[in-house]
Amino acid sequence: MNGAECLLRTLVGNGIEVCFMNPGTSEMQFVAALDGVPEMRGILGLEENICSGAADGYARVAERPASTLLHLGPGLANALSNLHNARKARSPIVNIIGEHATQHTAYDAPLTANTEAFAAPVSAWTYTTRSAEEVGRAASEAVRAALAPPGGVASLIVPADHSWLPSNSVGAVAGPAPRPLVEEGRIVRAAELLAAGQTALYAGGAALRPRGVEALRRIHAATGARIFVNRFSARQPRGRGREFMTRMPYFPEVAEASMAGVRHLLLVETAQPVSFFAYPNRRSTLMPLNCQAYEFALETEDSLDALERLADRFPASVLPAAAMPLPSPGGPLTVESLGAIVAAELPENAVISDEMVSSGEPANKFLAHAAPHDTLPVCGGSIGQGLPLALGAAIAAPHRKVVSLEADGSGMYTLQALWTMARERCDVVIVIFANRKYRILEIEMQRTGVAQVAPRAQTMLDIDNPTLDWTALARAMGVPAERAETCERFHDLFRNALGARGPFLIEAIL
Amino acid sequence: MNGAECLLRTLVGNGIEVCFMNPGTSEMQFVAALDGVPEMRGILGLEENICSGAADGYARVAERPASTLLHLGPGLANALSNLHNARKARSPIVNIIGEHATQHTAYDAPLTANTEAFAAPVSAWTYTTRSAEEVGRAASEAVRAALAPPGGVASLIVPADHSWLPSNSVGAVAGPAPRPLVEEGRIVRAAELLAAGQTALYAGGAALRPRGVEALRRIHAATGARIFVNRFSARQPRGRGREFMTRMPYFPEVAEASMAGVRHLLLVETAQPVSFFAYPNRRSTLMPLNCQAYEFALETEDSLDALERLADRFPASVLPAAAMPLPSPGGPLTVESLGAIVAAELPENAVISDEMVSSGEPANKFLAHAAPHDTLPVCGGSIGQGLPLALGAAIAAPHRKVVSLEADGSGMYTLQALWTMARERCDVVIVIFANRKYRILEIEMQRTGVAQVAPRAQTMLDIDNPTLDWTALARAMGVPAERAETCERFHDLFRNALGARGPFLIEAIL
Repeated sequence: MNGAECLLRTLVGNGIEVCFMNPGTSEMQFVAALDGVPEMRGILGLEENICSGAADGYARVAERPASTLLHLGPGLANALSNLHNARKARSPIVNIIGEHATQHTAYDAPLTANTEAFAAPVSAWTYTTRSAEEVGRAASEAVRAALAPPGGVASLIVPADHSWLPSNSVGAVAGPAPRPLVEEGRIVRAAELLAAGQTALYAGGAALRPRGVEALRRIHAATGARIFVNRFSARQPRGRGREFMTRMPYFPEVAEASMAGVRHLLLVETAQPVSFFAYPNRRSTLMPLNCQAYEFALETEDSLDALERLADRFPASVLPAAAMPLPSPGGPLTVESLGAIVAAELPENAVISDEMVSSGEPANKFLAHAAPHDTLPVCGGSIGQGLPLALGAAIAAPHRKVVSLEADGSGMYTLQALWTMARERCDVVIVIFANRKYRILEIEMQRTGVAQVAPRAQTMLDIDNPTLDWTALARAMGVPAERAETCERFHDLFRNALGARGPFLIEAIL
Repeated sequence: MNGAECLLRTLVGNGIEVCFMNPGTSEMQFVAALDGVPEMRGILGLEENICSGAADGYARVAERPASTLLHLGPGLANALSNLHNARKARSPIVNIIGEHATQHTAYDAPLTANTEAFAAPVSAWTYTTRSAEEVGRAASEAVRAALAPPGGVASLIVPADHSWLPSNSVGAVAGPAPRPLVEEGRIVRAAELLAAGQTALYAGGAALRPRGVEALRRIHAATGARIFVNRFSARQPRGRGREFMTRMPYFPEVAEASMAGVRHLLLVETAQPVSFFAYPNRRSTLMPLNCQAYEFALETEDSLDALERLADRFPASVLPAAAMPLPSPGGPLTVESLGAIVAAELPENAVISDEMVSSGEPANKFLAHAAPHDTLPVCGGSIGQGLPLALGAAIAAPHRKVVSLEADGSGMYTLQALWTMARERCDVVIVIFANRKYRILEIEMQRTGVAQVAPRAQTMLDIDNPTLDWTALARAMGVPAERAETCERFHDLFRNALGARGPFLIEAIL
């Protein structure tokens, strides 16, 4: 065995069975070792941000890490913005990053860079191996670091000689990473605040897993307390039966208004709500000024157990169903009609990758009443994640339908993900919201104090010259695709795509 | 005026008239200020690595900096791998990076990241402004840092409030950055070594500008000394009349053999030659073991003056022309026939963006005998630069023909550059070398000690499933394109494309 094979066997031994990769010369031993370790599935991305975004999507759905394989500092650099998103999602990821052979780093060859410095801003753990013998142990450490609550990005840097030299030290299986319980005093205090009224909960992270949602439902049913969800949580259960949870609105005025009357906000695996951007003459915080935050469960603690204990303090109560009939629109497509049709057709237990950006608020109004499903947002706000995230989700859950709702501007950052979807026959329906502009920036420009968008500025917000042909882009990468300009056409295409298997893209012209 | 307008006026006052940008909310004031400062040309990229690669290409051709405008830490992160290449090319670039408003950074909003930490590994200078009043002065400092010999990346981080608050302090014009002269003793010593024989020169950086090439020609003609060129230099004059310069070969055995008999190597703005990667049982250095390196001119020194002084020490001598007739191949396309046709048709004073990767060595044999031209390689070895580099070169030199020779695998990293080429009507002919694999990795895998590429490993090196349709990709982004499978067809398409203006892509099937 060489170091690379020890590394692969350590990952597989730790249940990591997918590697999203874009390898180079210094990672060739790892690639060569794939044939000897068939438990590891290598999935090629044509650019590294595809790999990191896919690893994030995989982790959010599978609830365990995937690995990435990246080529030296510059290959890692290409992956960083989606690793930033993964860090904010608290997704466990094990990055394997090749490095020049140890004797080569002194010479400042073209690809020489400060790889650890690139890794540090996104990583909970960064380490460069010191010998081939050490690779297995270091890989175990990486897994442990990725799994440590609440989950994080671990970056293991492996010089090429540590991969090609002999090694026999397969690393151990990293044990489970239990979360500490929330002490009883906080449960008691939270129950008191709920009983007193004017108290709401604000939940994120693992608190939104099924057990947490059930406990939140019981608390809401028993006390009437409003339940707010951190809109940047990694995986959010939505749809029918989950309408009692309010996703925190995007714009700060709307968010603040939605919390009117709340005097105490119990924080469950989240910090207090803040606005996405700052604006002139507007504070960053969103809670009403006379509202106080109360830390109920930290992001590293066992919030599921804590929420259940809190729910147990109240008598059981039934929550009436809140059904909203979904409209069946016709005529030219609008953001609202797209949202309504997607919501009406969405199959139960689907996974949505939501990178609709400016289209998100109007479309999500309807999705809140779709069949029960999970939504994955862009947790770190760095656009260009939607398509890779959908790819990773589809690899993690081949039997769930993945629907990628994607703004055209955002989609262009990482359109190469379509090729990997075609190659791996991922069951993803992609809807491109083609408004042919950075619409969100038109809105934000005015919010930051620009009275009117003048002509030269406007050209930096438009992406309609030349017009992007998303249908052709998709087909050129092996994904069948069609264009829709009316509700009727979109409805047909969407229904048919859901009924088939494999990737399909619909360019919805707005 | 606000801080953003001060910033723009300072850049323009310093001769920076192009900004490759992908802005977000925190940079809206900068975008809005474009209408008041018409001297600045904003050029939109659909992903940030397009912007940074274009700024590199611009700097290499224009010999002055362009600016970029990037959105917070994650937007900068997307630009990093081409900034790595720019750093290795010593290209002056001024990055303007927006940051959250100062009062917002405490709240860890989704996009909050350690922007300075992202910038540091690629930047010669990194600074975050502390007030709106300071923005102009800081921008002047950024320009000065970018221009300081040998040229570098300056990263100026501007919180959103420093852009939107009033400011009246336009920054000064940064003075010229003269390079120190090489002391006479080194000239004398170099002349002695050349007179003694078995001495060669190895040149890079600014030494390859026209004055340097002329001096190198005189030295070579007078002494017979061989002239080697660092293949990772930013801009390399090649073609007829420059055949006396030998580009250092890529593979270490070939490079070492090419220097056989050299006992002294005079280094001109470059470190000693080293291999691109390390391999088992092979040293990293390339000079023959009995050869000594001698630092003639550092990368910060005035090598042009030094080379001229060195040439003056020898009597003038005429270099005979070394004409090589270029073949006119027919039949199915090969890398060699592509190289021959491009070389035969290339117009004088063209600029080549060379990201041919595995196709480079065979094609470049012919290009060395084309009409005189400049070649821009990927100096930092991070692939995905070729198309953005061509874009930037075309913006810098609208009256020179730019030819982008691009491997299909590399091109996919940053294919979005095609859209900006179409939008800006750049005069670029793009040739995609479509071998549908990461061919270089097949070669490198064997070189790193893998005896045979097994089936699962091979799938990580192939990009033919599904087949990428480059012609459709280009058209979908507004660039006209055709496919060629024979020499005759390619020759026709290439000749016609050179005769027209505007971008055109030829997918050459290998």
